[in-house]
Amino acid sequence: MELGSPGAAPGGVSVSAVLPAGGSGERLGGATPKQFCAVQGRPLVSYAVRAMERISWISDVIVVVSPENTETMKTIIEKYGHKKVTVVKGGITRHRSIFNGLKVFAENEFSSHLLQKPEVVIIHDAVRPFVEEDIVAKVVMAAKEHGAAGAIRPLVSTVIASAADGCLDHSLERARYRASEMPQAFLFDTIYEAYQQCTDYDLDYGTECLHLVLKYCKTNAKLVEGTADLWKVTYKRDLYAADSIIKDNLSQQVCVITNVKETLAQVGFLLPESLKSQIKDKRCAIQEIQELVDMLEKSNIPLLYPVVLISLHLDISENNSFSIGMEDLTMIKKFARETKKKNILVYGLLIQCKDPLLLQETVNSAAALIMALIKDRNPELIGQLLVA
Amino acid sequence: MELGSPGAAPGGVSVSAVLPAGGSGERLGGATPKQFCAVQGRPLVSYAVRAMERISWISDVIVVVSPENTETMKTIIEKYGHKKVTVVKGGITRHRSIFNGLKVFAENEFSSHLLQKPEVVIIHDAVRPFVEEDIVAKVVMAAKEHGAAGAIRPLVSTVIASAADGCLDHSLERARYRASEMPQAFLFDTIYEAYQQCTDYDLDYGTECLHLVLKYCKTNAKLVEGTADLWKVTYKRDLYAADSIIKDNLSQQVCVITNVKETLAQVGFLLPESLKSQIKDKRCAIQEIQELVDMLEKSNIPLLYPVVLISLHLDISENNSFSIGMEDLTMIKKFARETKKKNILVYGLLIQCKDPLLLQETVNSAAALIMALIKDRNPELIGQLLVA
Repeated sequence: MELGSPGAAPGGVSVSAVLPAGGSGERLGGATPKQFCAVQGRPLVSYAVRAMERISWISDVIVVVSPENTETMKTIIEKYGHKKVTVVKGGITRHRSIFNGLKVFAENEFSSHLLQKPEVVIIHDAVRPFVEEDIVAKVVMAAKEHGAAGAIRPLVSTVIASAADGCLDHSLERARYRASEMPQAFLFDTIYEAYQQCTDYDLDYGTECLHLVLKYCKTNAKLVEGTADLWKVTYKRDLYAADSIIKDNLSQQVCVITNVKETLAQVGFLLPESLKSQIKDKRCAIQEIQELVDMLEKSNIPLLYPVVLISLHLDISENNSFSIGMEDLTMIKKFARETKKKNILVYGLLIQCKDPLLLQETVNSAAALIMALIKDRNPELIGQLLVA
Repeated sequence: MELGSPGAAPGGVSVSAVLPAGGSGERLGGATPKQFCAVQGRPLVSYAVRAMERISWISDVIVVVSPENTETMKTIIEKYGHKKVTVVKGGITRHRSIFNGLKVFAENEFSSHLLQKPEVVIIHDAVRPFVEEDIVAKVVMAAKEHGAAGAIRPLVSTVIASAADGCLDHSLERARYRASEMPQAFLFDTIYEAYQQCTDYDLDYGTECLHLVLKYCKTNAKLVEGTADLWKVTYKRDLYAADSIIKDNLSQQVCVITNVKETLAQVGFLLPESLKSQIKDKRCAIQEIQELVDMLEKSNIPLLYPVVLISLHLDISENNSFSIGMEDLTMIKKFARETKKKNILVYGLLIQCKDPLLLQETVNSAAALIMALIKDRNPELIGQLLVA
């Protein structure tokens, strides 16, 4: 996993990131804290870490987890090959956890892994997997200029205040307010000073870093309009949404490999054309698929995402009865079960083509099946032989 | 579609509902307004209408759509067999649309379809598909007592106010505020009076009905804690989530039918047992599946949701080579394509069982495949013969 050579940060400042990942995920209704819930087989926190570490100008990524999850987090970093990451034990609230994360850059008590203090520190959530470099750069630039900055989004619902009797006290005019999202960024010295000066009440009941720098450092954070994908995974439905978005993002391209050549084809109307021009009357032997599997494994790609491998078989025999040995089918399934352990999902697809007049129809049908298999990445259907 | 006999409303009041469905869905980023986006083949608004009409004590459901979508909406009502529904042309804003919906119960200009004025009127969104009777009843009861009531949820993000320079002015203490959700309910005369008295500015720029009855009728609405499933489909990710939730809800039970008997089996660890005890050495002929398809079609179930029909084939022959005529496969696929038009998804599943010692394993594998097919409802895989 190459992370790109260290690039110049926006505004030439040094930048590191702190990711609080200490939440209990009670709103999700499950036993597993949401940052450790798997999406396409990988914990959510790994997506957020990856989103930060792949930005070349971010030096260090501090992940703050509750003490009981330290080992889990270290295992995740090891397993998914994350770089730049330091795991820090969190406090009992969000603010205490972020403060602990910041101390790594500043205090001697952590001298065993004291890291270079950055000029600007990004604070992001472990449960916001889709942040893009563009918005991170904007927030960092704004923090350099204003001392603090944060992404915002329009409110989805009207916000209301209730009176003590559980009735409406007043409603806020929606257009005047915004939802405070992540990432946020701060001049390190500003946010650190705010945390040093703030009260225990702030640390225990507060939720908003922008509020702390306003209250203790008189710094009015610059608000930066964020994109819709900054949303935070909070409920089970958000996990479903994250899963679908990741599958969607993964399913834009297929690589068509024959013994002749290798082409990247866009999923969509061009896929049938690409298939038609390239399929040869050749049953792909398991040995050849094994070579592809080995290659993929070396590439480390299946480490981060399940990879779909579809073995195409072309049958142009005049024979009207399709016959396949049960042993063959069993072998393919056994093989697929083995490669699934490497996060590679193998499916078979037979393209029948006796009547040349029906070739286009059959190839269209094959392309639709390929797209469905790629899109779904269904682990239960591995090793099946579908017929186009 | 039986909707249940008219039941007694909570508190014995007469109740009807107004669903504003005039939004343009610009936040979704597509051309289709979100209320008309299909989830499992059916427009979102149909789910919301169904959620209201299936509550026996709701008399009328008024759906307010923009003039250009009137015909679309009428087609939806026809196609999905909705009852109790009156389509009303909306105004250019949410408040104007709701007001138009209320007028149907009150004004002579709509005398051609003047409906019985209810004591309590529910206002719900066309893009909130998962509302349960329980919360609707709570809100109606509270409205009867207090004059107005609305469902609320905790805030997911901190809410902030920005100053004119785009910097933070102040942030709200999250615990003191709530998100105002739907459904809401009102004494009809109260909300109608509020709409009659309110200004054009309110009608054009306001968003909150609870605010109108507070301002113009001095009615402090009762706030009712809602469940997480009340959320509003706003972004594309919400459509993904709705799709997954609906598939999840649909995939809790399978009906195992043999020539011997018919059993309802819970999806999960009991399914393999159920399969094992019931499968017979019998290839299901297409004619028999056709009878099931006809039965399902008559039941109207496929009108609302895609139904999965899996034809099980048991092969206990000693023959080690599985052979199937290509004509058979083609016929199954053709048959599946036809039934798909009726919203019934047909798949084939072959259970191989030469070695009695491996029966349990094979049956487990069959159950896993069945669950995957049911869960995914993938229309591209219809007519395929999978092997357990």
